[in-house]
Amino acid sequence: MSLLKNDTFLRALLKQPVDYTPVWMMRQAGRYLPEYRKVREQAGSFLGLCTNPELACEVTLQPLRRFDFDAAILFSDILTIPDAMGLGLCFTEGEGPKFTDPIKTIADIERLPIPDPESELRYVMDAVRLIRKELQDSVPLIGFSGSPWTLATYMIEGGSSKSFQKVKSLMYAQPKHMHVLLEKLALSVAFYLNAQIAAGAQAVMLFDTWGGMLTTEDYREFSLNYAQQVRSLLNVGADDNKIPSILFTKGGGQWLEAMADTGYDALGLDWQTDIQSARARVGEKVALQGNMDPVALYAQPDYIEDKVKSILANYGQGSGHVFNLGHGILPDINPDHVKAMVDAVHRYSPVYHRFSNSD
Amino acid sequence: MSLLKNDTFLRALLKQPVDYTPVWMMRQAGRYLPEYRKVREQAGSFLGLCTNPELACEVTLQPLRRFDFDAAILFSDILTIPDAMGLGLCFTEGEGPKFTDPIKTIADIERLPIPDPESELRYVMDAVRLIRKELQDSVPLIGFSGSPWTLATYMIEGGSSKSFQKVKSLMYAQPKHMHVLLEKLALSVAFYLNAQIAAGAQAVMLFDTWGGMLTTEDYREFSLNYAQQVRSLLNVGADDNKIPSILFTKGGGQWLEAMADTGYDALGLDWQTDIQSARARVGEKVALQGNMDPVALYAQPDYIEDKVKSILANYGQGSGHVFNLGHGILPDINPDHVKAMVDAVHRYSPVYHRFSNSD
Repeated sequence: MSLLKNDTFLRALLKQPVDYTPVWMMRQAGRYLPEYRKVREQAGSFLGLCTNPELACEVTLQPLRRFDFDAAILFSDILTIPDAMGLGLCFTEGEGPKFTDPIKTIADIERLPIPDPESELRYVMDAVRLIRKELQDSVPLIGFSGSPWTLATYMIEGGSSKSFQKVKSLMYAQPKHMHVLLEKLALSVAFYLNAQIAAGAQAVMLFDTWGGMLTTEDYREFSLNYAQQVRSLLNVGADDNKIPSILFTKGGGQWLEAMADTGYDALGLDWQTDIQSARARVGEKVALQGNMDPVALYAQPDYIEDKVKSILANYGQGSGHVFNLGHGILPDINPDHVKAMVDAVHRYSPVYHRFSNSD
Repeated sequence: MSLLKNDTFLRALLKQPVDYTPVWMMRQAGRYLPEYRKVREQAGSFLGLCTNPELACEVTLQPLRRFDFDAAILFSDILTIPDAMGLGLCFTEGEGPKFTDPIKTIADIERLPIPDPESELRYVMDAVRLIRKELQDSVPLIGFSGSPWTLATYMIEGGSSKSFQKVKSLMYAQPKHMHVLLEKLALSVAFYLNAQIAAGAQAVMLFDTWGGMLTTEDYREFSLNYAQQVRSLLNVGADDNKIPSILFTKGGGQWLEAMADTGYDALGLDWQTDIQSARARVGEKVALQGNMDPVALYAQPDYIEDKVKSILANYGQGSGHVFNLGHGILPDINPDHVKAMVDAVHRYSPVYHRFSNSD
């Protein structure tokens, strides 16, 4: 960590004193940037972009050339693991991800392999290594994966879903087999994140995009339980070399206390959750990441600046806050508005870190 | 109320002693029933069905012939008010509701009329009167409306939305005009619900389907605030003749305390919210309605029965619980599974009401 020119993001996740609140943005490498759209076109397809380490590296770095982000995040997709398991990931224009061979039977679950990240997901590790090299220790690189539960939803539904009927029906009717699937996914995700760490990722984030569709009871048993298993298997090191880990359940604002007990260093917050009460509820256990409404970036820069100030003030004094959106940036946002947000975080946050630094 | 053969539902909403937990189901008159699909076909269109009091009455009564529901709910749509305001509601197959003339300018907001329910929404009031007559005081009839915020989202987006960019952009850029629109809608909704009450509705429910897409701060200012205004304008009577009112914000589980302070007698809970902790949080202020995952109705009757038992046990002893789903029933559910749920509520709930009755 000491090699990094800017380790503010890592320090904030570990609740160590910082000079200002660090900021990055979910989907910061993405369609809102014209330079991204150019490379995406060159790659031919979204998957072509993900599987080409040079192009993945290029789009990872693009937002850092424009904005003072305090972290880079690996450009990839959350569904690389099921693809490596043989389900055949594909993207159809405007429809989101699909699997050509979704899980349909118990036998399909039993025969699922646990991918070896350095062979079957080699393109991801190569991208991580290349990005680390190109970053030249300017800011840390975040690795990530979809959560076991979220991967399972896509693997069983065959793509995005509205009601999650298929995956929940398996969960209700065959909970044992659902657990077998989630065990395999927890192992696969942990191996995958550990390989990213070995390749150079300096923090990792688990995206539980669909945990918020569960009842409180089912969330604990089928989502959080496996997020915790992943965490317990991570090679995060210790002390000054610790790799911080972040857990984000979209729609999980009611369950922060339980999430804070799983060993992750930080929790991602969606925009519906009030960061002030969230902090009061989790106490000193975890740092918090978030949580401006992504739609607020359509507003004028003055309004964006006000929202940034309000979120910073609501979090309040001291370290443990990483500024972010409450979900990924939308594809048609004006990049100037992103700049307004990033600059406002850096301009208005130092006042909240004066006391913690003099400790 | 004393005329009713079964007033369990009304008593539970007012937290008066009951012999068992009453149950009804959001969208209980709907596509999962073959007899509904027949009438729907006869009507030619969904709107044709809503605007024909005889047919609306028929489909309202259908589920009561099959199941021992403790309440009927008016068959209608949440978007009747904007339609009466002149926005031109239409339904396209598989795409949900659309407006031919959505709000596009500030002038559009200024010229919006406040509909007179007994003329412009006469078909709704006629349906209420007819249903009340046909119900013959067997169970109470619930009237309803979309919440001001939820109506505003459709009126500005022109239909369903994923990111709510247009309505939020107006809210950010022109909060004053957004408030003008919401004031008009609060008045319109209150007049509409009062007309339903005058026509015979014995309880009313406000559906805030999209309040959960807001930040905590914006929810209070733009959604809850107007739900409260509606409540303060309702002619609900008092004491034994009080018309109970229910507020349901989907995705509002984090805000129950604030919702409980608005004067509604009961809060609807989505399935993600744990009913036991919800009850602890709202205390004696309100009754709770909910909250089985609608997808659980795909499961086998044994599983459904277990889930019913678990929700009843989690609510615990005493009145103040109306059993329901956490959202509307899905269109392809087997009606036998609904019967399993309704019968389980009636079979397993009396034990939770022994003590309250002996008080």
